[in-house]
Amino acid sequence: MKRCVLCETPGGRLVFEAPKFRVIHADEAGFPAFYRVVWREHAAEFSDLDAADRALCMEAVATVEQCLRRHLAPTKINLAALGNMVAHLHWHVIARFDWDTRFPAPVWAEAQRGRDGAREADIALRLPAVEADIAAGLRALLG
Amino acid sequence: MKRCVLCETPGGRLVFEAPKFRVIHADEAGFPAFYRVVWREHAAEFSDLDAADRALCMEAVATVEQCLRRHLAPTKINLAALGNMVAHLHWHVIARFDWDTRFPAPVWAEAQRGRDGAREADIALRLPAVEADIAAGLRALLG
Repeated sequence: MKRCVLCETPGGRLVFEAPKFRVIHADEAGFPAFYRVVWREHAAEFSDLDAADRALCMEAVATVEQCLRRHLAPTKINLAALGNMVAHLHWHVIARFDWDTRFPAPVWAEAQRGRDGAREADIALRLPAVEADIAAGLRALLG
Repeated sequence: MKRCVLCETPGGRLVFEAPKFRVIHADEAGFPAFYRVVWREHAAEFSDLDAADRALCMEAVATVEQCLRRHLAPTKINLAALGNMVAHLHWHVIARFDWDTRFPAPVWAEAQRGRDGAREADIALRLPAVEADIAAGLRALLG
């Protein structure tokens, strides 16, 4: 069996851990509020989960999204489960800003402008509050 | 109020229409099995929907995904809700193949190889069966 990096490592800075999923902050240059909801068990595709687990997974995604919107008022939220490189179910939850290097293109497209270090630093300062809210929201979701 | 192309037009070839969402086939060069689940009401973000509608929306996405997997055995399914250009909730459900122009990069990245017209045509021939299955699956979902 091929080794899977998301089975063996957190895949980023751990923000919250639940029995069935974890939330990590991803260190992706130019995108200061880039989170991932990583399903704990190895599953390649969203539809490998049963309906109850799909609902739980997406309510976790929605919780992260709501916290990003509330604290950071991003231009847009981007959600994606691709997994072409690491086929272990993980949802990208990305706060996008009209000043980021790719907006309005996806984060995977070519850069359209340079980074805005001051604005990125401002977002970074607010992440502890975002993440406290994510943890509280996920605790409430899990009951 | 700004006019919204997904409020005013189907946004692609209509495959299935439900009271709260529709499924369209998107004509995206090089990606023959590229579908979208478009929420009917104008909503910018996934978390603008309530939990019941989020679950319905994602079960529709999962149904499309399952049909693509069953009929086409893609290398990977890619799911995404971005909306940076058209901020009306729509989920991309894309069958990816290891021979497509971008794999394993996202469809929005730069091309890595030329198109394989014969393989694309083979997929295109199978879409009527895929879409009949999508419609049947969604009718079952809606009960």
